Amino acid sequence: MIIIGEKINGTIPKVGKAIEERDEAYIRDLAIKQAEAGAHYIDVCAGVAPEQEEEVLLWLMDIVQDAVDTPLCIDSPNPRMIEKVFSRAKKPGIVNSVSAEGDKMEVLYPLIQGTEWQVIALTCDNKGIPSDVDTRVNIARQMIDEAAKYDITPDRIHIDPLVMALSADNQSMIKFLETLKRVKELYPTVKITSGLSNISFSMPLRRVINQHFFCLAIYAGMDSAIMDPLNRHMMATLLATQALLGRDRYCRNFSNAYRKGIIGPKLEERKKK
Amino acid sequence: MIIIGEKINGTIPKVGKAIEERDEAYIRDLAIKQAEAGAHYIDVCAGVAPEQEEEVLLWLMDIVQDAVDTPLCIDSPNPRMIEKVFSRAKKPGIVNSVSAEGDKMEVLYPLIQGTEWQVIALTCDNKGIPSDVDTRVNIARQMIDEAAKYDITPDRIHIDPLVMALSADNQSMIKFLETLKRVKELYPTVKITSGLSNISFSMPLRRVINQHFFCLAIYAGMDSAIMDPLNRHMMATLLATQALLGRDRYCRNFSNAYRKGIIGPKLEERKKK
Repeated sequence: MIIIGEKINGTIPKVGKAIEERDEAYIRDLAIKQAEAGAHYIDVCAGVAPEQEEEVLLWLMDIVQDAVDTPLCIDSPNPRMIEKVFSRAKKPGIVNSVSAEGDKMEVLYPLIQGTEWQVIALTCDNKGIPSDVDTRVNIARQMIDEAAKYDITPDRIHIDPLVMALSADNQSMIKFLETLKRVKELYPTVKITSGLSNISFSMPLRRVINQHFFCLAIYAGMDSAIMDPLNRHMMATLLATQALLGRDRYCRNFSNAYRKGIIGPKLEERKKK
Repeated sequence: MIIIGEKINGTIPKVGKAIEERDEAYIRDLAIKQAEAGAHYIDVCAGVAPEQEEEVLLWLMDIVQDAVDTPLCIDSPNPRMIEKVFSRAKKPGIVNSVSAEGDKMEVLYPLIQGTEWQVIALTCDNKGIPSDVDTRVNIARQMIDEAAKYDITPDRIHIDPLVMALSADNQSMIKFLETLKRVKELYPTVKITSGLSNISFSMPLRRVINQHFFCLAIYAGMDSAIMDPLNRHMMATLLATQALLGRDRYCRNFSNAYRKGIIGPKLEERKKK
């Protein structure tokens, strides 16, 4: 599982405050902790007013790249913003994101042409997020075929089927799994990704729903996840599911993570007992 | 999911003590609580010395049948013991269990011939529990074909593939899923069952492993589970997975269970916060 660490996002109140106060130490710490917890990419999203975004993104990118070697995932709703800050990245990472909306692909595909950069591609277009599987698969196909024109191969594309809240659509998970299966049938090397918390919106016990969503998605073959690698419950789900699926020899990763206190009760809580 | 409530089992220390002291109220309470929590069958297992087993089983059966309308799952390693107490059951339930070992099928199949009783069939024989899928499938086939001679149709048989501890066999879950798939391909109406705790034997965070095992097994099409319906974590897994798989309209079962305090923090704990 490719982990895209989602914690450095200005829309998260504490992070927004750290950005406002230009608290470098706070951002640095988030980068280091996520990298240590196993993040393969560190997402940076400014989440500020458009006129400040460039400066904040560059500030975040510099801090993260100074703190860790983990590549970036540059996250902005505005493709031109990604274009502006792109050259500041020291090594290939992930562009987050294109979709079939507006001219996103026209702006971002040429940017990563001839590089090793990857891209997250959301299955939405000018009409919004489709509620059916067919339209999602068609948009995925459109984005992958368009990428091919820029020599961007499917293995560099993380299709995000944009899972809806289960409370809004009872078939949301089923549609996600079906989209995953059909896109992979068409393009066996393409990657499928997802956030892990949208599914449980407006439900009680969100963590439980999110964990089981993640478990089933791993089993179905999801390749990457936009997640909080410091969330011990989600990491327990990841490690438990990998162990169950025979991908963790002697269950060593699972057992070591428990011993180090990465999953399960925190070490200090265990001592109390 | 057909829930076979496993709590009335003399090998559980507290239950063993209640049996020793003939504490009728304790057993009665376990029966009522399991039925209220959604058990479709109440397993009764004496777990005592052979010379006491008949008396204890009959005692347990009488208490449970007096307390609840939920049918019994009569559980003994000795098929002749099941034969002895069988007529005390007031309605058809489940016989737990046959296997291809010794003369279990010869004793128990005629017993339930011409009735509505179901049977749990373990994939083991005189050589013990096989570690490979092929032998498990062959034993399942042998038991189902033998049952047909007594007009016991596959839909009355719960095949238990006897999942091994993941710590002993890294491929244990994979083998379980493969056995499930192959047996269902051969006999589409047969039921697949399993206990939910053996998988995590000798691992840390057993509950987490058990929950994810259950989640994946539900997704794979397991029909029944020998489980503790009072375990709020396992019930959360069941309800969350059913909701995710689109089998819980408007997520009502999940939300109601949360509101009633059946899953999630207990109601009294929520008030404290």
